Amino acid sequence: MSESLDLGYARVDLGREARQGVPEIVYGPGKRTDEIAGIVTTLLGGNTGPVLVTRVEHETAAAVLALVPGGRHDPAARLLAWREARPAGHRVAVVTAGTSDGPVAAEAAAVASALGLTTTVIRDVGVAGLHRVLAAADELRAADSVIVIAGMEGALASVVGGLVETPVIAVPTSTGYGAALEGVTALLAMLSSCAAGITVVNIDSGFGAALAAYRLTRGPR
Amino acid sequence: MSESLDLGYARVDLGREARQGVPEIVYGPGKRTDEIAGIVTTLLGGNTGPVLVTRVEHETAAAVLALVPGGRHDPAARLLAWREARPAGHRVAVVTAGTSDGPVAAEAAAVASALGLTTTVIRDVGVAGLHRVLAAADELRAADSVIVIAGMEGALASVVGGLVETPVIAVPTSTGYGAALEGVTALLAMLSSCAAGITVVNIDSGFGAALAAYRLTRGPR
Amino acid sequence: MSESLDLGYARVDLGREARQGVPEIVYGPGKRTDEIAGIVTTLLGGNTGPVLVTRVEHETAAAVLALVPGGRHDPAARLLAWREARPAGHRVAVVTAGTSDGPVAAEAAAVASALGLTTTVIRDVGVAGLHRVLAAADELRAADSVIVIAGMEGALASVVGGLVETPVIAVPTSTGYGAALEGVTALLAMLSSCAAGITVVNIDSGFGAALAAYRLTRGPR
Amino acid sequence: MSESLDLGYARVDLGREARQGVPEIVYGPGKRTDEIAGIVTTLLGGNTGPVLVTRVEHETAAAVLALVPGGRHDPAARLLAWREARPAGHRVAVVTAGTSDGPVAAEAAAVASALGLTTTVIRDVGVAGLHRVLAAADELRAADSVIVIAGMEGALASVVGGLVETPVIAVPTSTGYGAALEGVTALLAMLSSCAAGITVVNIDSGFGAALAAYRLTRGPR
Amino acid sequence: MSESLDLGYARVDLGREARQGVPEIVYGPGKRTDEIAGIVTTLLGGNTGPVLVTRVEHETAAAVLALVPGGRHDPAARLLAWREARPAGHRVAVVTAGTSDGPVAAEAAAVASALGLTTTVIRDVGVAGLHRVLAAADELRAADSVIVIAGMEGALASVVGGLVETPVIAVPTSTGYGAALEGVTALLAMLSSCAAGITVVNIDSGFGAALAAYRLTRGPR
Amino acid sequence: MSESLDLGYARVDLGREARQGVPEIVYGPGKRTDEIAGIVTTLLGGNTGPVLVTRVEHETAAAVLALVPGGRHDPAARLLAWREARPAGHRVAVVTAGTSDGPVAAEAAAVASALGLTTTVIRDVGVAGLHRVLAAADELRAADSVIVIAGMEGALASVVGGLVETPVIAVPTSTGYGAALEGVTALLAMLSSCAAGITVVNIDSGFGAALAAYRLTRGPR
Amino acid sequence: MSESLDLGYARVDLGREARQGVPEIVYGPGKRTDEIAGIVTTLLGGNTGPVLVTRVEHETAAAVLALVPGGRHDPAARLLAWREARPAGHRVAVVTAGTSDGPVAAEAAAVASALGLTTTVIRDVGVAGLHRVLAAADELRAADSVIVIAGMEGALASVVGGLVETPVIAVPTSTGYGAALEGVTALLAMLSSCAAGITVVNIDSGFGAALAAYRLTRGPR
Amino acid sequence: MSESLDLGYARVDLGREARQGVPEIVYGPGKRTDEIAGIVTTLLGGNTGPVLVTRVEHETAAAVLALVPGGRHDPAARLLAWREARPAGHRVAVVTAGTSDGPVAAEAAAVASALGLTTTVIRDVGVAGLHRVLAAADELRAADSVIVIAGMEGALASVVGGLVETPVIAVPTSTGYGAALEGVTALLAMLSSCAAGITVVNIDSGFGAALAAYRLTRGPR
Repeated sequence: MSESLDLGYARVDLGREARQGVPEIVYGPGKRTDEIAGIVTTLLGGNTGPVLVTRVEHETAAAVLALVPGGRHDPAARLLAWREARPAGHRVAVVTAGTSDGPVAAEAAAVASALGLTTTVIRDVGVAGLHRVLAAADELRAADSVIVIAGMEGALASVVGGLVETPVIAVPTSTGYGAALEGVTALLAMLSSCAAGITVVNIDSGFGAALAAYRLTRGPR
Repeated sequence: MSESLDLGYARVDLGREARQGVPEIVYGPGKRTDEIAGIVTTLLGGNTGPVLVTRVEHETAAAVLALVPGGRHDPAARLLAWREARPAGHRVAVVTAGTSDGPVAAEAAAVASALGLTTTVIRDVGVAGLHRVLAAADELRAADSVIVIAGMEGALASVVGGLVETPVIAVPTSTGYGAALEGVTALLAMLSSCAAGITVVNIDSGFGAALAAYRLTRGPR
Repeated sequence: MSESLDLGYARVDLGREARQGVPEIVYGPGKRTDEIAGIVTTLLGGNTGPVLVTRVEHETAAAVLALVPGGRHDPAARLLAWREARPAGHRVAVVTAGTSDGPVAAEAAAVASALGLTTTVIRDVGVAGLHRVLAAADELRAADSVIVIAGMEGALASVVGGLVETPVIAVPTSTGYGAALEGVTALLAMLSSCAAGITVVNIDSGFGAALAAYRLTRGPR
Repeated sequence: MSESLDLGYARVDLGREARQGVPEIVYGPGKRTDEIAGIVTTLLGGNTGPVLVTRVEHETAAAVLALVPGGRHDPAARLLAWREARPAGHRVAVVTAGTSDGPVAAEAAAVASALGLTTTVIRDVGVAGLHRVLAAADELRAADSVIVIAGMEGALASVVGGLVETPVIAVPTSTGYGAALEGVTALLAMLSSCAAGITVVNIDSGFGAALAAYRLTRGPR
Repeated sequence: MSESLDLGYARVDLGREARQGVPEIVYGPGKRTDEIAGIVTTLLGGNTGPVLVTRVEHETAAAVLALVPGGRHDPAARLLAWREARPAGHRVAVVTAGTSDGPVAAEAAAVASALGLTTTVIRDVGVAGLHRVLAAADELRAADSVIVIAGMEGALASVVGGLVETPVIAVPTSTGYGAALEGVTALLAMLSSCAAGITVVNIDSGFGAALAAYRLTRGPR
Repeated sequence: MSESLDLGYARVDLGREARQGVPEIVYGPGKRTDEIAGIVTTLLGGNTGPVLVTRVEHETAAAVLALVPGGRHDPAARLLAWREARPAGHRVAVVTAGTSDGPVAAEAAAVASALGLTTTVIRDVGVAGLHRVLAAADELRAADSVIVIAGMEGALASVVGGLVETPVIAVPTSTGYGAALEGVTALLAMLSSCAAGITVVNIDSGFGAALAAYRLTRGPR
Repeated sequence: MSESLDLGYARVDLGREARQGVPEIVYGPGKRTDEIAGIVTTLLGGNTGPVLVTRVEHETAAAVLALVPGGRHDPAARLLAWREARPAGHRVAVVTAGTSDGPVAAEAAAVASALGLTTTVIRDVGVAGLHRVLAAADELRAADSVIVIAGMEGALASVVGGLVETPVIAVPTSTGYGAALEGVTALLAMLSSCAAGITVVNIDSGFGAALAAYRLTRGPR
Repeated sequence: MSESLDLGYARVDLGREARQGVPEIVYGPGKRTDEIAGIVTTLLGGNTGPVLVTRVEHETAAAVLALVPGGRHDPAARLLAWREARPAGHRVAVVTAGTSDGPVAAEAAAVASALGLTTTVIRDVGVAGLHRVLAAADELRAADSVIVIAGMEGALASVVGGLVETPVIAVPTSTGYGAALEGVTALLAMLSSCAAGITVVNIDSGFGAALAAYRLTRGPR
């Protein structure tokens, strides 16, 4: 079967694009610069859609771009992207509870955007000052889906889940200390939400939320 | 504001239907028969859509139906439903890993169906005998969304997540013993899945998964 | 020292009233009917304020009242009370997220009331339908303190904490299932709240919240 | 609604002072020097009360003060403060179990003091040498409220809770090792205290305790 | 090697008395009446010291005593004992925090007594009313060792550990609810105690504490 | 008894080879270079089989080899080996889910190989792209045993367990973040696997898996 | 594909025998008598090897045997078996730490035996009386593999792991109370064992251990 | 009361020696050099017995000794000691499972020795090579008490508990990785030990074990 290519240091899944609409997305940490460059080159050659590398710091990004030109580095999102998709109509709103949730929101927004979603970010509307999220309610209701990003007690997910009727993807973050348990508390809280029908992805996984939003745009085969 | 009606024993959210497309769904446990009947009557009078009560055992169901006729009891799903919606086009596949996941699947399917989704159930295709889920792959790919229900190690969610490109909603169940930790292991495993973009709801929450699938059918306002 | 009286089955702290303003409150479970009656009789004789027994079921309550007349049984609160205090001016609002939080609210309200606080209960204003708590905001702001009772993800505590400026005492409840972890999730969430300055008591401890509210009425010596 | 001002990197809640009596308090970590300065300047301009930044280290503090003069840095408390409030009559006693609880106590005392509370700190009176807390009992009883700060097993909260009748706010700290579980043990112990009516805030949250004490001084509206 | 005797349903360790000074002690739960009787008969025949069975309920106790006369049943301690030892000089004080710790104290005292320790029980001296344990301080200091039994936050262990200089054996109990986590909180708190040199046994293990006290009476060989 | 040799800093178990077929294997971390060299020299002198040191970084390895020549350093496996065994016929397949599991696989393969097992490594066949492990199925079935190495949700163990009938040893790894809980999730998931008869070793323990595979080659005595 | 047969209430994996050497084994709990009978009949018809149902209580067993004659019920093991395999040469020793581990040992032994392994059970040799396991050492060393079953602290696994060189499969049991955490402590302890190369299965899973032992008898294809 | 002296940065408990036989022992981490020196000087002046500081690294130790001469630094134990006690007759054996438990053993031995106990250390006798601890059995039985120090699964405590009849104090260590959970597994295992009457102190607390052994030498007053 020729769907995979074994580079020795990684087995690249070239069939992913045919099966799931988007090429395999590369997780940066733990890979050497030349390994990332090799995988990206393979994906650019064997697939036709966007090629992304997540969680890449500045230095690595520059080194990879030197080896594989034509890409773009988004430092806030720690994302490298080649051949980003054009907007295809789905509007996703990314909303955060506090300033510290920023990096996760940046990743979610940048990945969603590179996959062709039209992305709006609404920052810093935590429930302790409820007027902030209420002021954004119309903007949230106008989106096709909402990604809610919150740490600490994660209450924003429940409030947004009650305000909109479209799909809500909640991302707990590791923001907070003590009883926040590095994101576990927000995770458990979002899963126990009184707002029916919201769904949850892993702690700090802006990437996972963006992919879940991308799936909303895909139809059956 | 007249969106809520306070019955003394419960404050019924009559505005839910206008805000989220479906009337408030009643959680049965801990409520007396006459309380359930009172809430259902209020919802049937104040809203126009389907009225559902979840987790209702046989005896209670019969007593409530005697007080509020016109409903239907699905004993496998432990669901009471009045004014079920007609199919509106979205096809959701509900797939389970093992026999013990049956009650959760029944709830997911019955709630989804009562809300107007066309539902198919594919049972007992756990990954220890991989040919079973592979045989169902085309059926899964033909759905608009997939609800994956699995306990123990919950591996089916990752496998299905890699087979389809549409939204995948994973429901961990409390099936298993010892290290399965009453569903916590499946929950953590599904959240850590290597299949990108799958989302997760609470343990044993067939109801939550059905509502999440229902949200997929709703657009912005 | 004569502050305590040893009845053999219990050492009654008769000095508690002098030290803390209210006689020792008796925890019912695990004590026999005659033991409860003996302790109550001792407290009625050795102190002058209200005498309370918490978590008492119907049958036990009736039997104790037969032995020690003059008390009152509040079945919803599972409370026995003799010599209840007269209202002394402090108004506490008890607010709950959902129907299932009712028994904890009943205990909080009944204990607070027996200790001389003026108590209002606002039921079933969970954040999934935000208009409900917003409709109650003025009532909450008019109280001297607020007890917030919520299970599942406990988000109501954060929302109320942001609406009022008076003391907020949050009580997590064991309402919910799966990831709600029998109240632990609500507990951790309330402790991690983004609303500054709210405080938390033990899971399901309506009693603890009422005592904390009572302390608000006490001055230094 | 003009209650918030979006600076791009943060949405400043200018309405907080009107709603809760004190302007939004800034959490320092994760914010750049110029961002802190920008937020502080906004709050000084848009509000009239004290403006505080918590958890600020030396270097950052100096840099911010260079940009926004007129403030004061308390290095032990890691606090920056402008326009501190004058004493308004409420006396809070801050009491610690051991030397290592010092930084949390410093934060609690400095924040409380900047908000207008008269603050006394009683250090190092852990229960292993009971005479120490007994010697301080009169001083504790003379305060309007008590903040108890303890790590390890947190037993001091129960002992103080039994000595005074005024509000007790317990702060578990991450002091200790092994079974102390970075403060979780003290947290659980304080929540399970046999001293009725004490309340608890998050681990190491001197800030949270000070705000809870500040709420004691606020009345209904 | 003839140190053990295999009865089919149990391998009785007859050498335990020679190795450790006291015959094997039988754990009752999960064993049939005739099995208990068989093991007891074997131990009475093969050893010369006290023979004990722990955690035996009324009915089983009566049935076993009918088969193996000469023993005594202590219902509060749930203990069956034959050939109890005579007092050998070591005085152990068993002290409890609250009424609910009674059964564990009864087991500790009865086992210790059956092994020849002189036992005093001091009940219900929890730290919320500190005068109670202070009143007992001289009695505690007069003992050769102290067993401290407490649930909830277990603070009594730290206080007693600071009052006496002899060995302190702490027994956490499952008394309490919510954050008490069925004894885990008291266990962790006692292990994290600020009172140096106290030791801890398993939750609710009055038996383990009594055996630890018994070891204090044994010398090297 | 002369089975052990006490070097002061370590008691070397020279009898291990006679009892278990392979000399004691040295765990590198926390030992000084000269201590490792001393233990290795002792084992080379007192035993006749392979001598291994695990988890050795570059610098230490070079220093030890300078003191005890004749060994070999495998940097990927962080292994030092002297007198490696010759292939003895058992073929073990080491299979990994992702690139990040590489170091654990390298340790498993290098230790197994040094003990005389014929080792094949199959990399990067995680279940999100199921065709990869299916393509390797014949190779897996041709081995005498399989070591499955996976982090995150660890689903590969269940899938491989269903594909082969020979012994499967699962190694959870600390790969992943958030809900992966540093390997605990994969550990619990593998223990709860729906594939009957797979066994599990400690997190990241490539060494433990290799030793378990080695035991498969040993017969009774 | 005809490897599975869908009975409506269960999808029977008829291909399991061809793939893994033994037909699918049925987990009894949660299935009705007629469902069990239906599955067993299907397996007896579609496969040729042993057919087993685990965790079956007395009444169910009798009812199933009435519907599907020719089987045997082992009440201690809670096992139903038809067409048990003949001994094929592999000798497995099942060893337990205490009397309470008996039911798990019975299941392990009965399943292993029904699959053709020659099984010896060595009971009640916990490490508190070390002479017991030492007396059994030769018997353990004479087996082809050892299943070690222990609850509480599970130390027997480490001791046996150091005595034999053949495969050791450790089964933690839920025996014990308090800190034993219903088997989790023994599970973690066995995984952390200092005896190299022992493997672990789920808590109380005598069945899993037997299947793991059965895999030891299977070769590659 | 003059039992304590408040130095501003610490309240020194000068009455500890009179109450418990040994002056307060200083915990080093988190204190400045001059603070340690100040506390030590105070204790040397106000008490007559040994003065100890635990967990002191090299540089700090040298600086403190320069300020307060006459003390001794034990670098392996990280202990500073002045006026060490002379041997008073009690012999304690300190026994460890592995090389990595060395630092904890060094602390236990050095503190015990400074308090007047005669200390023997027996290293590296983990249960995987049982002959090692058996070879030391007579030495263990000849001691007045035994401190058992072990990480990973902590099985050595159960084995030693079964070999001696004198007091056994178990110290779990953070040795190990993965499922060893930084000492929590050994802690839980020791508390669940099948060897009756062993007691446990906090993880890595060689200090706590030494103090517990010291208490064995104290009588009632």
